[in-house]
Amino acid sequence: MATCFFCPPPIGFKTNNNAISIPRFTIRCNLKTEPDAVCGAVKAFAPATVANLGPGFDFLGCAVDGLGDTVSVRVDPQVHPGEICISEIIGNATNKLSKNPLWNCAGIAAIEVMKMLGVRSVGLSLSLEKGLPLGSGLGSSAASAAAAAVAVNEMFGKKLSVEELVLACLKSEEKVSGYHADNVGPSIMGGFVLIRNYEPLELMELKFPSDKELYFVLVTPEFEAPTKKMRAALPAEIGMPHHVWNCSQAGALVASVLQGDLVSLGKALSSDKIVEPRRAPLIPGMEAVKRAAIHAGAFGCTISGAGPTAVAVIDNEHAGHAIGKHMVEAFIQHGNLNASAQIKQLDRLGARCIHTSHDM
Amino acid sequence: MATCFFCPPPIGFKTNNNAISIPRFTIRCNLKTEPDAVCGAVKAFAPATVANLGPGFDFLGCAVDGLGDTVSVRVDPQVHPGEICISEIIGNATNKLSKNPLWNCAGIAAIEVMKMLGVRSVGLSLSLEKGLPLGSGLGSSAASAAAAAVAVNEMFGKKLSVEELVLACLKSEEKVSGYHADNVGPSIMGGFVLIRNYEPLELMELKFPSDKELYFVLVTPEFEAPTKKMRAALPAEIGMPHHVWNCSQAGALVASVLQGDLVSLGKALSSDKIVEPRRAPLIPGMEAVKRAAIHAGAFGCTISGAGPTAVAVIDNEHAGHAIGKHMVEAFIQHGNLNASAQIKQLDRLGARCIHTSHDM
Repeated sequence: MATCFFCPPPIGFKTNNNAISIPRFTIRCNLKTEPDAVCGAVKAFAPATVANLGPGFDFLGCAVDGLGDTVSVRVDPQVHPGEICISEIIGNATNKLSKNPLWNCAGIAAIEVMKMLGVRSVGLSLSLEKGLPLGSGLGSSAASAAAAAVAVNEMFGKKLSVEELVLACLKSEEKVSGYHADNVGPSIMGGFVLIRNYEPLELMELKFPSDKELYFVLVTPEFEAPTKKMRAALPAEIGMPHHVWNCSQAGALVASVLQGDLVSLGKALSSDKIVEPRRAPLIPGMEAVKRAAIHAGAFGCTISGAGPTAVAVIDNEHAGHAIGKHMVEAFIQHGNLNASAQIKQLDRLGARCIHTSHDM
Repeated sequence: MATCFFCPPPIGFKTNNNAISIPRFTIRCNLKTEPDAVCGAVKAFAPATVANLGPGFDFLGCAVDGLGDTVSVRVDPQVHPGEICISEIIGNATNKLSKNPLWNCAGIAAIEVMKMLGVRSVGLSLSLEKGLPLGSGLGSSAASAAAAAVAVNEMFGKKLSVEELVLACLKSEEKVSGYHADNVGPSIMGGFVLIRNYEPLELMELKFPSDKELYFVLVTPEFEAPTKKMRAALPAEIGMPHHVWNCSQAGALVASVLQGDLVSLGKALSSDKIVEPRRAPLIPGMEAVKRAAIHAGAFGCTISGAGPTAVAVIDNEHAGHAIGKHMVEAFIQHGNLNASAQIKQLDRLGARCIHTSHDM
C-alpha cells in the first residue's frame, strides 16, 4: 500500500535543447493544489528496451516496437485515498511477481508518480499485464514501471514531464535491479536515449532518422541469465587501451544512430571489448550466436542488457527472419538451448496511453 | 634524404558513408605508372588542431581556423630523383627542427606520399614555414606533416585520397609523438574527426552544422609541457564507474557536435574524470584557468592535446576575448605563467593547397 506524501517546491530545469536536469531523490510536485483525476480509468503500454548496446554499457538504450507491458489504473473508492492496490497481474511469470505495490515495479513507479503529483484524495486499483518475460534482458521491470507511471500521470492530467516520469521509474529500478536509467529512459521516451548524468538526472534523446528503417533480431534462449553473476563478471578495472577503444566505439555508435548509418551502427554494436567478452561466456552458445548472426548478414550483434537475449541489427524484416533462424540454430547447436527469435522495429514513441475511460 | 620505393596493388576501401578503412603500415600506390608533376611548385597550408577534447582522449580532435603551418614544395633538378631536400625552415622554433627529411615531420610525410604515389623520377625541394609553436598542444607536428602531404599530392595531380594522406602523416606522428591520428585526422580533413580504428584505419567525419558558429579560446602559457611526463601521468587502469562516465560523456560530446549544441558540447568538454585530473596539476595554474573560463561564461574548458594550451568554447568572438582575458590572468595569478590568448573559429576545410605555379 502507499505511503505518506509531501510536496516541496518545484525543481527541475532544462539545460539545453536535448538534455534535462532533475536532482536525484527529490520528491517533487509542480502543483500548488492536488490535481483531480481527469478520467476514471487509463490503460498504458510501455515498450521493451535493449540496454547497453555493446560499448554503450550502462548509459545507452533503445526501445523496441510491439513488445512490452500494459498497465491499467482506475479510480477505486475501495482503496484508501492516496494509496494503490494491485488488483490483478496477468501474462508472463505472474507467480513470480508480488501484488504488494511496494515490491512490484509497476506499484513502486505508480506510488512515486502519486507522490510527485501530491495525490492524497483518490485511491487507485492497478492491473498489470506482463507482455515481457522476466530476466530476459529486454527491460521487463522498466516496462512495467514505465507503463504504470504513464498511466497514473495520464489519469491526473499529464502534469509531469517525460523526464520526471523517468525519475519515478528509477525508484523502481533502484529497488529491483540498481539505479540505472538505460532501460526506463528509452521505455518512457522511445527511440535511443543516452543517460548523461544521474546527479542531476540528464537524458539525451538521440534521434534515429525518421526515413530510415531499423530492425532488431531478438533471440531469447530458454536460460536464466544469473543477474548477480553477470554483474560480478564485470572487470573492476579497465586498461587504458580498452578504455580508449570502447570510448571511441561509443562515440561511433552515437554518431551512427544520429546519422542513421546502420552498417556503422552494427559495427559499433559488435565492438565492445570490455563487458561482452566477460558476459558472453556465461550464456551458453552466445559467442557462436553472434558469429552466426554476422555470418548471416547482420550488421552487428551483442547481448541485450545483461542477457540472455542476443540482439542483432539489420535493415529489413525479410533478412531479419533469416538471421534469426541462424541465431536460433546456433543456440541449439553450440549452447544446447532452445531459443525463439522475434524481428522488431525501433519504437519511436515510448510509453503511451492506449485507452481512457471517463467513467469514475 | 628519401629511401627506396615499391608499389603494391591498391588497397583501401570505403566501408560506409562516413568511415574509410585502410590497412596500417601498407605502402600503397593506386597508380600503374609513375605520375607526372602537374606543376612546378605548390604551397599548402594545414590547420592547428585540438586533440582529446576532454572525454575524447586519444580518438577525437578538431581543426582550428587561421593557425597552422605552411609547406612549399618545388621540382628541383638539383635533388636526386625520388628524393626530398628540405631547403628552408622559417617561423617558430626553427633551431629546434631538423633539416634531415627523415627527422622532420614535413619531410617524413612528404617522403611517404612520394612512396605511395611511386614517384621515382623527380626530386623535390621543401620549404617549411612554422606558424605553430612546438609542444603547445595544438598539433604542431601534425600540421607540418599535413601541409607537406597535401602539397606533394597536389604536385602530382591529387591522386591520393584524404584518408591515404592521413596514413602518410601517421608515419610522421609515429616517429615524433606516437601512432595517433587525433591531430593529423582533423588537420587533413578539417572539422571534427573521430578515429574509430587503426587496424585498418577508420576515420569518421563528425559534421558540425554549417549554420552554427563555434569559437575556441586558446590560451597558451609560457611553459613547456613535458610530453613524457604527460604520458606517464595517465593511469594504467581505470575503475568501471569512471570508464562508464567518460564513455557516456564521449557519446554526449559526439552528439553535441553533430547537433551543433554548443552548451552541451562545452559541458562534455569539461567532463573528463580520467585524463584531465591527472594532467592538469602538471600545468601550473591550469585548474584555476578552467574555473576562470567557466566563471567568465565559457561553455566548457579543458587541456588542448597534452597541453599546456587551455581550450575553452563559446559561441561568439566578443565573449571569447573576455573569457581569454580571464584565463590569461588566471595563468599569471595561479600558475605564475605569462600566457597569450587567441580566439579562433572551427576550421571546416582542413589542409589545402593555397598556391600553385606551373613553372618547372
